[in-house]
Amino acid sequence: MKLREFAKQLGLSPTTVSRALSGYPEVSEATRARVASEAMRLGYRPDINAVRLKTGRAGAIGVMMARSGEIHFAEFMSGMAQRLETADTDILITPITAHNDEDEMQAYRRLVESRRVDAVIIHSPRPRDPRIGVLNSLGLPFLVHGRSESEHVHAWLDIDNENAVRRSTEHLLDLGHRRIAMINGLRGKTYSIHREQGFRVAHQERGLVADPNLMVCDKFSDESGFRHARSFLERANAPTAIVAGSTMTALGVYRAVRSLGMTVGQNVSVIAHDDVFPYLTAESMVPSLSTTRSSMRAAGTRCAELTLQLIAGRAVDEIHELWPVELILRESTAPPP
Amino acid sequence: MKLREFAKQLGLSPTTVSRALSGYPEVSEATRARVASEAMRLGYRPDINAVRLKTGRAGAIGVMMARSGEIHFAEFMSGMAQRLETADTDILITPITAHNDEDEMQAYRRLVESRRVDAVIIHSPRPRDPRIGVLNSLGLPFLVHGRSESEHVHAWLDIDNENAVRRSTEHLLDLGHRRIAMINGLRGKTYSIHREQGFRVAHQERGLVADPNLMVCDKFSDESGFRHARSFLERANAPTAIVAGSTMTALGVYRAVRSLGMTVGQNVSVIAHDDVFPYLTAESMVPSLSTTRSSMRAAGTRCAELTLQLIAGRAVDEIHELWPVELILRESTAPPP
Repeated sequence: MKLREFAKQLGLSPTTVSRALSGYPEVSEATRARVASEAMRLGYRPDINAVRLKTGRAGAIGVMMARSGEIHFAEFMSGMAQRLETADTDILITPITAHNDEDEMQAYRRLVESRRVDAVIIHSPRPRDPRIGVLNSLGLPFLVHGRSESEHVHAWLDIDNENAVRRSTEHLLDLGHRRIAMINGLRGKTYSIHREQGFRVAHQERGLVADPNLMVCDKFSDESGFRHARSFLERANAPTAIVAGSTMTALGVYRAVRSLGMTVGQNVSVIAHDDVFPYLTAESMVPSLSTTRSSMRAAGTRCAELTLQLIAGRAVDEIHELWPVELILRESTAPPP
Repeated sequence: MKLREFAKQLGLSPTTVSRALSGYPEVSEATRARVASEAMRLGYRPDINAVRLKTGRAGAIGVMMARSGEIHFAEFMSGMAQRLETADTDILITPITAHNDEDEMQAYRRLVESRRVDAVIIHSPRPRDPRIGVLNSLGLPFLVHGRSESEHVHAWLDIDNENAVRRSTEHLLDLGHRRIAMINGLRGKTYSIHREQGFRVAHQERGLVADPNLMVCDKFSDESGFRHARSFLERANAPTAIVAGSTMTALGVYRAVRSLGMTVGQNVSVIAHDDVFPYLTAESMVPSLSTTRSSMRAAGTRCAELTLQLIAGRAVDEIHELWPVELILRESTAPPP
C-alpha cells in the first residue's frame, strides 16, 4: 500500500501520516497512536529507502551489546521492535567487549563517522556515566534507559527503583519481619544504588537499620539466587524474608528454601522485582510470588517512541519519564514464623 | 592500536590479519582463531569505516526480529557478538510483524536496495521456507540457522534435533517407561518435525508406537510446560515420563508434578532439551534435570563466523554443519514407579 492511499483511508494528509510514524512532536500522541495501530491493521509500511533519500536519515537506532548477554535484552528489544515495525526504523547492534568503557566510546565515535544511526539508546548507566559526556560532545542524539547524575542534561526513561524496593521492604516490615536480606543487581549501577536506597529508607522510617551483612550485589540468575539464599539461610541468625532482584533470582531463592526443608511463604517470605518475562510468570510459581512489577517490553516500546521523537527534534530536557512500579502481593509473603 | 602494529606483534602480514578477521577462507581456521583471540587480548579493533571504504562492504549482518520475542534470541545474539566484536561487523535488526511472510520478504527487498547489510541470518525455518527462494533471487548472501528442504542450495548450521530426541526417548524406554509424553516446539518448524521424528523412531525401533494423544506442540515457556504436564498427568492412563522442549518448559513440568503431590525422578521422569541459558542451569534444578544439550550461544558465534566466510566468498554448498547433541543424565530420569 502506498502512503497516499493509506493516508486517504485514515482521512489524514500524507504529511501528517509521515510525521506521525516518524514521531514528530507536532503530531498529537493520540494521532500518532491511531496512525501506528492502523498501519499495523492495514499492513502499511513506509518505504525506508524513500524516507532515507528524502530526510537524509540513516533509518536506524543504535544499541551496544556486550557479549555477556542479558536476559532483559531480548524483552527490551522486542518492545522496541513493536514500536519500530511501523516506523521504518531498524536497530543497529554493535558488539562490544563487556566492561570496557574505551571500547564502547570508540564504537560511538565510529557510529557517528559512518552515519549509520540517527540516535542511540544506552542501558544500565552508573551515576557518573562517562558515555553521556562522550555522546553529548559527539552530537549524537541519545536516550538513557535508566538514569545518571551526569552534569549533562539527557533524555531518559527509568522506573522508580527506589520506591519499588522501599514499598516491598515496608510490606515485609509491616508483616513483622525484622531480619530481611536483599539480593541486589550489579554493584555500581544506578538502579542497584536506588534499590539499596529504598531498602535503607524503609528501615530508617521505622527507626531500624538495614544490616549490611544481609545485602549482596550480583547478576540476576537462578544460580546467584540459590547461592546467596543458601548462604543467608544457613547462618545462625538467619533472615526471615528475602528481597530478590528479579524473578530469575527468586527461582534460585525458592530452590534454596526447599533444599533446606523449608517452605516459601511459611518459613521464609520472598518478594522480587518482576520485569514480566513471557516465559516465566510470577503468578504461576508455587507458591505464587509477590512482586514489584514493571514491564521491560513496555519500556522498550516507549524508549523507541521517545527516541523517534528525539530524532524528530523534540527537546532533550522534555524527555524525562519516571515510571511508577506496581506492588503485587501474592502467597510468597506472610508474617514470620 | 593500528593494524600494522597489531600484525607485527603477531608476526603476520597486515593483509593476512585483515583477511583472518574478515573470515576469508584462504586463511586457515587455526590462524583465524589465533588472530581473533589475540585481537581480544591486545584490544585491537579494526577501523570499520576504513574497511567499508576499502571493500565497499556495509559492515553489518542482518537479522529479522518478530516482536513476539524469543528467549533464545538474546543468547544467539550474544554468541554472534562474541565473534563480531573483533570482526568490525555490526548486527542490523529489522523489526517485522510476526507470522507475516510478505512483510518479511518486503523487508529483505529493502535491505538489498539500501545496501545496509552484507548478508542475513534466518532462523527457525520450515521445510519449504519461502524466504530461501526470495533471498536466493535477491542475490543477498544468507545463512540458515536450522535447516529447510528447499530446492535451493543454501548455507546452514543446525543441531541434530532428530537424534537428540531419539536418544532421550531411548533412554526413557531403556528405563522401562512405556507411556511417554512429548511437549514439542512450534508446529510446522523443521526442528519440531525433526524432534517428533526422533520420538517416533525411538518407539518404532522397539516395535512400539508413539501415542499421538501424548504429543503436543507449543511455544517454550514455563506456563505451557505447566499446562500440558497437568493435562497429561491428570488423565486416567497418565504417562510416567515427559520429554520437554526446553529447560523453561521443564520448569513448568516440575511445578505441575509438585502441584499434584508427586516427585520428579520418582513418580514421573523428565528430560528436556537445554540450550544452556546462563541464568537457568539444568544441573542446579531440584532434582537436577537430565538433558540433551547444545549451546545456543556457541551456535550464534559459529553462525557469525560462517556468515563472515560467506561474505568473503566461500561457496554456499561448503557451508553445511550439523552439530551432534550431548545426552547428559542427571537425577530427573529413573525407572517408572
